[in-house]
Amino acid sequence: MSLENQIIQIAKSARAASRITAALSSARKNTALNTIADLLIKNRETIQAENKKDVDAGRESGLSPAMIDRLTITDKVLSGMAEGLRFVAGLDDPVGSLTDSAIRPNGLEMAKMRIPLGVIGIIYESRPNVTVDAAGLCLKAGNAVILRGGSEAIHSNRALAGIIEQGMVEAGLPGSAVQVIPTADREAVNIMLKQEEDIDLIIPRGGEGLIRHVVAQSSIPVLKHYKGVCHAYVDDTADFKMAADIAVNAKAQRPGVCNALETLLVHEAVAAQFLPLAGKALADAGVTLRGCEKTCAILNDARPASQEDWEAEYLDLILAIKVVKDMDDAMAHIAAYGSNHTEAIITNDYERSRRFIREVDASLVIVNASTRFNDGGELGLGAEIGISTSKLHAYGPMGIKELTTTKFVAWGQGQIRE
Amino acid sequence: MSLENQIIQIAKSARAASRITAALSSARKNTALNTIADLLIKNRETIQAENKKDVDAGRESGLSPAMIDRLTITDKVLSGMAEGLRFVAGLDDPVGSLTDSAIRPNGLEMAKMRIPLGVIGIIYESRPNVTVDAAGLCLKAGNAVILRGGSEAIHSNRALAGIIEQGMVEAGLPGSAVQVIPTADREAVNIMLKQEEDIDLIIPRGGEGLIRHVVAQSSIPVLKHYKGVCHAYVDDTADFKMAADIAVNAKAQRPGVCNALETLLVHEAVAAQFLPLAGKALADAGVTLRGCEKTCAILNDARPASQEDWEAEYLDLILAIKVVKDMDDAMAHIAAYGSNHTEAIITNDYERSRRFIREVDASLVIVNASTRFNDGGELGLGAEIGISTSKLHAYGPMGIKELTTTKFVAWGQGQIRE
Repeated sequence: MSLENQIIQIAKSARAASRITAALSSARKNTALNTIADLLIKNRETIQAENKKDVDAGRESGLSPAMIDRLTITDKVLSGMAEGLRFVAGLDDPVGSLTDSAIRPNGLEMAKMRIPLGVIGIIYESRPNVTVDAAGLCLKAGNAVILRGGSEAIHSNRALAGIIEQGMVEAGLPGSAVQVIPTADREAVNIMLKQEEDIDLIIPRGGEGLIRHVVAQSSIPVLKHYKGVCHAYVDDTADFKMAADIAVNAKAQRPGVCNALETLLVHEAVAAQFLPLAGKALADAGVTLRGCEKTCAILNDARPASQEDWEAEYLDLILAIKVVKDMDDAMAHIAAYGSNHTEAIITNDYERSRRFIREVDASLVIVNASTRFNDGGELGLGAEIGISTSKLHAYGPMGIKELTTTKFVAWGQGQIRE
Repeated sequence: MSLENQIIQIAKSARAASRITAALSSARKNTALNTIADLLIKNRETIQAENKKDVDAGRESGLSPAMIDRLTITDKVLSGMAEGLRFVAGLDDPVGSLTDSAIRPNGLEMAKMRIPLGVIGIIYESRPNVTVDAAGLCLKAGNAVILRGGSEAIHSNRALAGIIEQGMVEAGLPGSAVQVIPTADREAVNIMLKQEEDIDLIIPRGGEGLIRHVVAQSSIPVLKHYKGVCHAYVDDTADFKMAADIAVNAKAQRPGVCNALETLLVHEAVAAQFLPLAGKALADAGVTLRGCEKTCAILNDARPASQEDWEAEYLDLILAIKVVKDMDDAMAHIAAYGSNHTEAIITNDYERSRRFIREVDASLVIVNASTRFNDGGELGLGAEIGISTSKLHAYGPMGIKELTTTKFVAWGQGQIRE
């Protein structure tokens, strides 16, 4: 079978399976999730043996220690996958619920019914745990899923897919509801991205290069974020200690993630007072500073920032600082350099807090708290499959509900249109 | 300026305008809509003079009478545009409303706030009234809009755009919030579809060819429907008169629209009784029939249907009829040939009505009523910009609310992540 036919076959069997998973009761979906969790633990040795092939090949091909670390399925990683599935099994099932119901003037009763999206394609880089996490969330929402992991993790992903399929079948569900693209051939991704009749949504997870490639190639809707260039604006009415604590937390608590702070904006009226305080706290946390001219005049250890610094997603213990004239100046900087991800203000001014929330365009706009709260768990979504900075369908963290949609349903007594 | 730079300039100025329209009060948006309505009526002669250029050119180039009809801005069409704007001004404004609010365990108060999408691109074929209707809906939802009409309507669209811009400016709003691509060059569309940084959504309205082109070219999310191959399944428990009335209404009341019936599916146990009754009613309404073998054995005036008939969107007084074994057989036919648009069942069986609603995948699934109710007005959306058969973001008729999205907002008291 040609590669193209192979991918088409996977997409069509996923579509067929999605008709079955869409109509499953929550109880049956939860049984399947718990069965897969049990099987993961039972098959630890097989999974880790397959994973070792990837890790060895990765070492030989010179993957960085960080990449090897992300690729390795330790006992702890495997237990985490199983626990994740059991957690998802315990979450509420949104499928089938009705909203926006009304009786129309002609007596037609209508509502919107929440339904699975259908078939979801996940394209991701090397972490094999995505295989299990994404499969669990998609299944809980009643979808079929096609997974395409990085070529470095191909043995691990095939092994995990085999376990998932076995769990599905043991629970009486179609095994083809979760499929892994079984080849490392990159052309497989491009073919997958054209199956718009049989795949309803693509979620890419990985670096900006991967995501731009997916968006450029796909005729299927894509939910994505390219990067997180997050700002915090310290207003002249801010509590300085609160602002410094938030800056340190947002930058340094976990610098390698998309909701970490990249640029601090400071009202010029308080720069001379606030920056030395914040600068010390940031330095104590190991953060290196890049500042605008005014910032560098106040903080001796800040290096001058260039244009690239305002655009940078450092994902590292580096922070850009800019002194701004006022909140409007801060909002203009955010509009120019922000990535619609997370934007924070620290203020005690009522009217500015309202305007910032209303006017700043980002998936989370937050007052007097850390940017790190842009996270499905922190915002109460239960579990998250990623964060979207596209505005269509979902803007911000995506949980189970964002893996569903609604259709209109109506009940009549013979109504016809006049 | 090159065409590419011209389009980029339009997209960037729309993005800038969208920041202003996003923060407008409902009162100011409504004033603008009513001002534009007044100006349309006041400038009737100018608009119709420009429209005449398009109509004359269309006649010369041999456009069909139906196309000329859709292109012509009669007094009635112009009044309809103005009334449409006033109607939209009277609708509720969804922007700024909060939902899903909660206080997190750490005291963080969060919610989802409804916001405009930003910049919407509409790509459509010859009807110039779309220029005004689409602009009005997008503006009411707080968006900026870029309009690209058919080349046959270029003079009309430029004239209408001029009036809209004048109305915006008179109402104190940025004129660049509504822009028409001022060239008939088809390359302009392809360039527009790559401006993903500055355009948030593309809505194509027109034939399947246009829509497939847009989907293939666009790196911006697209809301669309290709076609409406709608079915009605007549169960063996159906009220025959109700079923025949619905079939006639769904097929013949307005055959040229996407929610018209294309295929009637009939339970084999009642085919011999029901089909003569329905066949006569359909023939009386001028409908020509194409039937499966069993149908043709019952109805002498039905011509044998071929494979193409099951796939056809006739948009005409032609109906395909197929006798099916039972509801499962009907649902399998719908899954194979349906277009996720509108699917109806006529039944008196409780369990089947539930299963059909739950299991059939279409933007409207309806029991005991005409497929023609898949319409924004009929379902209570107020006004509609189109119907989506994509499942992302909106599935079914799209009103003002579907031209918005939600962002997360949160209010803290200094919270940081542990």
